[in-house]
Amino acid sequence: MVCSIVGLGLMGGSFGLAMRDYFEKIIGIDHNKNHCNEALKLGLVDEIGNFESIEESDIVILAIPVKGIIKALNEISKLNFKDDLTIIDFGSTKESIIKSCPKHIRKNLVASHPMAGTEYSGPNAAIADLYNNKIMVVCNIEESGKVQRNRAVDIFNKLKMHIKYMDANEHDRHAAFISHMPHIVSFSIANAVLKQEDKEHIVTLAAGGFRDMSRLAKSNPHMWRDIFSENKKNLLDSIEAFKSELKKAKKMIENEEWDKLEEWMKTGNNLHKIM
Amino acid sequence: MVCSIVGLGLMGGSFGLAMRDYFEKIIGIDHNKNHCNEALKLGLVDEIGNFESIEESDIVILAIPVKGIIKALNEISKLNFKDDLTIIDFGSTKESIIKSCPKHIRKNLVASHPMAGTEYSGPNAAIADLYNNKIMVVCNIEESGKVQRNRAVDIFNKLKMHIKYMDANEHDRHAAFISHMPHIVSFSIANAVLKQEDKEHIVTLAAGGFRDMSRLAKSNPHMWRDIFSENKKNLLDSIEAFKSELKKAKKMIENEEWDKLEEWMKTGNNLHKIM
Repeated sequence: MVCSIVGLGLMGGSFGLAMRDYFEKIIGIDHNKNHCNEALKLGLVDEIGNFESIEESDIVILAIPVKGIIKALNEISKLNFKDDLTIIDFGSTKESIIKSCPKHIRKNLVASHPMAGTEYSGPNAAIADLYNNKIMVVCNIEESGKVQRNRAVDIFNKLKMHIKYMDANEHDRHAAFISHMPHIVSFSIANAVLKQEDKEHIVTLAAGGFRDMSRLAKSNPHMWRDIFSENKKNLLDSIEAFKSELKKAKKMIENEEWDKLEEWMKTGNNLHKIM
Repeated sequence: MVCSIVGLGLMGGSFGLAMRDYFEKIIGIDHNKNHCNEALKLGLVDEIGNFESIEESDIVILAIPVKGIIKALNEISKLNFKDDLTIIDFGSTKESIIKSCPKHIRKNLVASHPMAGTEYSGPNAAIADLYNNKIMVVCNIEESGKVQRNRAVDIFNKLKMHIKYMDANEHDRHAAFISHMPHIVSFSIANAVLKQEDKEHIVTLAAGGFRDMSRLAKSNPHMWRDIFSENKKNLLDSIEAFKSELKKAKKMIENEEWDKLEEWMKTGNNLHKIM
């Protein structure tokens, strides 16, 4: 089978690297010429193509931001693609993608979100084991065709991923809590420290804990603005839930209610029992 | 030289493990009998002693919480200790310790704070390379005796640590930003997720980013309540600085000011250039 990857950054590039042996041919597609050259040089894909290359493909991976995926689905719907074409998108919010997918290609689409990533981006950031042992969320699977489901499952198994089926709605809410809000929090920590006059002095003390908490603030701002805008309502809800806990903690500290604060922290400890 | 370690948890135990060859003898001291037995069994110390063992010691490491350190300094001041006794405390806030140290033993004390740790505690958590390549903050060093300074520096060098000299005041402010506030933030994330009805479902999506952001919420609540209470003012200031950034981000999201939000994130990216 022939596979096209649209978007040769961290996600698309890592997919290519991991799946080179699985497909007869992998075609890379990206607006960014530098990314194309790098991907070819790094051996992430077999050749570089253009959007029309999708007509000869059996599988298309859309490893681009959500707005790009919505546009790409529209363009694909106008191509003379193979009947069994399987489109797998890696968009980080799912409801808007599924809602805007042209009806006659809905069965071709398997709406997925790999819970994998690093703080780096671009083809150079690609690593072969990015997907290994990670969760792949697949949304509203009952709307995908049978051939497409089976192909997608085979691919995710080959990547050694654990598949979780979920409603798109539910996925977007969960993603806000597990990923989008923590990004806003990490950027807030980074900016709070940077506002301090003695910031250089402060960060000389940074140990593991602070490195963990500020790592997400390395993420790509251009990519993340789109994710935030696509999931605005859920993101604001999850920020509100976080703020309410922070407010509670601040009040206990102000009032020196140390027993109560200790209980609140003990409750927080329980998170790791369910993770 | 003979070294006593008061407190056989993660910090004291790891110190013993790393320094067994350096001292003639290491005596472990801990109220908790189980910790004493474990430390002996794990080879973290040579023998178990009691507070009077400090009289035969050249070095004492106080690897206990701040309130315990303040009490211990008072008790040590009444012992018949050696003239050159070097007391090194590992307390995570420094001003209250230095202020309350009995005058006649102030020269014996080297007030230090290793920027090292894990989210685990107890002798079982001890690891030989905990201090390796980490920062050791030493505060108000001009108030320590010459012999004591030199001995402490030798020990920190043996541990392969990088020494930073700092005013106690400044240290406590920095520690709030780099460690204490991020702990409150991590516990707030954990509690916010735990409040959600579908929490088990949410955490199935947890990938690296969320694991990083929630790791500090595994920390020991009993230990941290004391750290927070010792550094209340600085902690509240740093929470306020964080909250003001979060509020700004929330407002930009509500108002869909995506360009502005992207700029704010780009600024946050700069943190890692100075770290």
